[in-house]
Amino acid sequence: MEAKLQEFENYLKKMRALQMALTLFSWDMSTVAPRAGAPSRAPYIGLISAEQFEMLTSPVMEGYLDYVEGLGSDASEIWQAIARNLRREYDANKKIPPNLILEFSELMATAQPIWEKAKETNDYPLFAPTLEKIIGYQKRFIEARGYDGHPYNTLLDDYDQGMTVEKLDAFFSELKETVVPLLKSVVESKAQTDTSFLAPVDIATQQKLSAFLMDKVGFNSTYGILSESAHPFTTGFGKYDVRITTHYYEDKPLSSMYSVIHECGHAIYEQNISDELAGTPLENGANMSIHESQSGFYENIIGRSLPFWQNVAGEVGSILGGSYAGVSAERFYAASNTARPGMIRTEADELTYSLHIMVRYELEKEMISSDVDVSKLPGMWNDRYEEYLGIRPANDAEGILQDVHWSGGSFGYFPSYALGNAYASQIKAAMAKDLDFDALVSSGDIAGVENWLRAKIHGFGMLKTPEELIVGATGESLNAKYYTAYLKEKFEGIYGA
Amino acid sequence: MEAKLQEFENYLKKMRALQMALTLFSWDMSTVAPRAGAPSRAPYIGLISAEQFEMLTSPVMEGYLDYVEGLGSDASEIWQAIARNLRREYDANKKIPPNLILEFSELMATAQPIWEKAKETNDYPLFAPTLEKIIGYQKRFIEARGYDGHPYNTLLDDYDQGMTVEKLDAFFSELKETVVPLLKSVVESKAQTDTSFLAPVDIATQQKLSAFLMDKVGFNSTYGILSESAHPFTTGFGKYDVRITTHYYEDKPLSSMYSVIHECGHAIYEQNISDELAGTPLENGANMSIHESQSGFYENIIGRSLPFWQNVAGEVGSILGGSYAGVSAERFYAASNTARPGMIRTEADELTYSLHIMVRYELEKEMISSDVDVSKLPGMWNDRYEEYLGIRPANDAEGILQDVHWSGGSFGYFPSYALGNAYASQIKAAMAKDLDFDALVSSGDIAGVENWLRAKIHGFGMLKTPEELIVGATGESLNAKYYTAYLKEKFEGIYGA
Repeated sequence: MEAKLQEFENYLKKMRALQMALTLFSWDMSTVAPRAGAPSRAPYIGLISAEQFEMLTSPVMEGYLDYVEGLGSDASEIWQAIARNLRREYDANKKIPPNLILEFSELMATAQPIWEKAKETNDYPLFAPTLEKIIGYQKRFIEARGYDGHPYNTLLDDYDQGMTVEKLDAFFSELKETVVPLLKSVVESKAQTDTSFLAPVDIATQQKLSAFLMDKVGFNSTYGILSESAHPFTTGFGKYDVRITTHYYEDKPLSSMYSVIHECGHAIYEQNISDELAGTPLENGANMSIHESQSGFYENIIGRSLPFWQNVAGEVGSILGGSYAGVSAERFYAASNTARPGMIRTEADELTYSLHIMVRYELEKEMISSDVDVSKLPGMWNDRYEEYLGIRPANDAEGILQDVHWSGGSFGYFPSYALGNAYASQIKAAMAKDLDFDALVSSGDIAGVENWLRAKIHGFGMLKTPEELIVGATGESLNAKYYTAYLKEKFEGIYGA
Repeated sequence: MEAKLQEFENYLKKMRALQMALTLFSWDMSTVAPRAGAPSRAPYIGLISAEQFEMLTSPVMEGYLDYVEGLGSDASEIWQAIARNLRREYDANKKIPPNLILEFSELMATAQPIWEKAKETNDYPLFAPTLEKIIGYQKRFIEARGYDGHPYNTLLDDYDQGMTVEKLDAFFSELKETVVPLLKSVVESKAQTDTSFLAPVDIATQQKLSAFLMDKVGFNSTYGILSESAHPFTTGFGKYDVRITTHYYEDKPLSSMYSVIHECGHAIYEQNISDELAGTPLENGANMSIHESQSGFYENIIGRSLPFWQNVAGEVGSILGGSYAGVSAERFYAASNTARPGMIRTEADELTYSLHIMVRYELEKEMISSDVDVSKLPGMWNDRYEEYLGIRPANDAEGILQDVHWSGGSFGYFPSYALGNAYASQIKAAMAKDLDFDALVSSGDIAGVENWLRAKIHGFGMLKTPEELIVGATGESLNAKYYTAYLKEKFEGIYGA
């Protein structure tokens, strides 16, 4: 048994080496690589990617998985979890005929530039035929992989194991019932927040603020770095090298501030994974939704809370200077929680964010389940914005063309953003039974909060299933009520609604 | 024939993909990667490196090489050059028994930290046993690989094909005859250069100067970037992605200025390689010495010339401001050519640089050829510094421990620095027959110079042998007389010696 597992471990290390190289190429491309060099690098990235895919889907891999599964409970908990996770990946990729994967990757090589051009020129019909093809491939993938209940379930499951249309319909319906009227009362409230002090801040000063915030929320800079990229993200090479990025806008200092805290949430999760999982395929967050729950927890539950501002208002004011100097915690708190319906998801506030997601969820469900006429999608999009947010996009560039996901072939991904926030609220409620969150955060003892998260969530990496994890941490499965209650309490408080 | 060559091409592309990944890991490590993450990344880099080495030394590779060599002149010029270069690499690596390579790489994993500590604490005896082992492996490598004439020739040939102890002894002896008395007269001259205006400059301003210089000398920023690292270097991913670094010291603005121009010389060489070689193993400089000749050409022949300063003095003065504003071309020229004996190679001026190299060359020759007593090496080092530069290191940290090369297992590498400068002078002399260098450079038309270099040197990549290249460009093999004449004329001019 030992020899065979040792062999498998070596095989996995080789796969991981290739994966690290791919991650590094991607990091490099998003941060410093000369853009014009991309076409000449692409074939080499393709070759490494092909080798990694070949290792993941080879009969050798299947043999190892069969072996570990055959050991049953004789295998260690770690090996069982490795096999469980790799089997999911193996199945997801193996069941799709290779020629379909090849065709799709050829389509993907051209889709993004077409989308970029369509967005730039506000020309949805330019992108529509490509979108139609991409949807067609999604359906064929689902057909090949099989599905339980709704075909969309197969894609949802990729990002959040066990998630289904049935559960999500209920989730969003509960959310809609609370958030749509809440937003209406916020918009109509006479108690609008005071944002008059939010003047532009030069980038060097914002960089100082980033360093302060990273330190404040507990990012471990010995084992990680901050860089800049067009869109903020987190990536990593195991827990000892976790990297985050931000993007600075002179006229929107809070934008970078909260994207730094958000990415710190992702990063701290990875940095806190237990040492015994280091170097294994379990050295990752449990899934997309749980990962978003941790970034959301840091960004919103901590970073947009009054106790946090009570702790940092003075220092933030003195770092930013000018109109920010001496601003009270209460004013910072209100300004950073300004809720307004807007067209663009990535600029949305905490209250409206999940409504943006709901629109995309409903459209994806439609695309996957019926023979949707792609020319009708912009109208469907705009109608829903009007219904949920009370505003209607003036054009498709600020409407259906705004997100990169579909042109990148990502379907089923969007819901994890909303689910992440819901998980975060539920985790906060469970945490509140064990510790005094407000007292810890207002005194700057965020490590006290982090310790709870490490013990209940972070440390496990991919060792537990997401369901085991959330039940273990909170005593129950995902329940939207914590999220709706949290939003109601917070925004009614701020807007006196 | 076509099918077999296509197969070989695919094989080479795969090897190149792995090499690119390794290059990227190394770039990343030297620029942004968190240092503390290195141990956890190392095994993965090792695995990719092992796969690349396996492909280079496999029987499959040998089969391909035999095949192309068997085609003789039926193979294209490009395929012949690929086979010639890969055969060199194959032989160099294949003849060494794998267990020796493994033992050596284990030694290498510990050698650098030991050297670092020894340098830091000025404790040569701490490093001596490791150095002795490293020398022992070099000898066993040479034994395994075989040699013509002097055993050191095998190592010299790695960095400059065809280079021998016989040729280098003659080269350095001619250099010594000229430079040692020249330096003496420079030191004793009453006409010392005026460096009084060289005040510290903040790093943001130095970054602006870098951008100006890169543009001025013709670095193509569409296909390249500048970053920062502890020691400046150039690396690349083919001609469409060439990266340089610099290191800024507030109190030494000329240091970064000349390292940027130096690295631009390396980079422009790579950027100018002919398109037909892109993606092949020939998309590289001809060898280390030729590469150093191009960086040296840009740094010294162009950058430290009076015509260059005549073109840029005004702009450099206004970018740097303060005491630099309004400094004349002649004062900049003299200050940037200040010659003084010093202990540290990397801080040496153009006149003394090759003397530093000569010391290392003579010591390496000694280490490789005889049963040298490592405890005697510091004394040998210090005696030579006294003889050639007229100064004696106060301790081993500023003496024999100063360079990283030996602890990294690099022997035979040092001479290419001096040879590069000698090639550069010879190239300049040949170029002067075709164009008016001073007129072009003083008018800012460095593209005129670059065009000549592209046509005679850069475009060929590794297609020609270094010997073919230098004879093709200058009409003769390496001849030290151009270098000594250049140094004499320049420094006698400045120091009125």
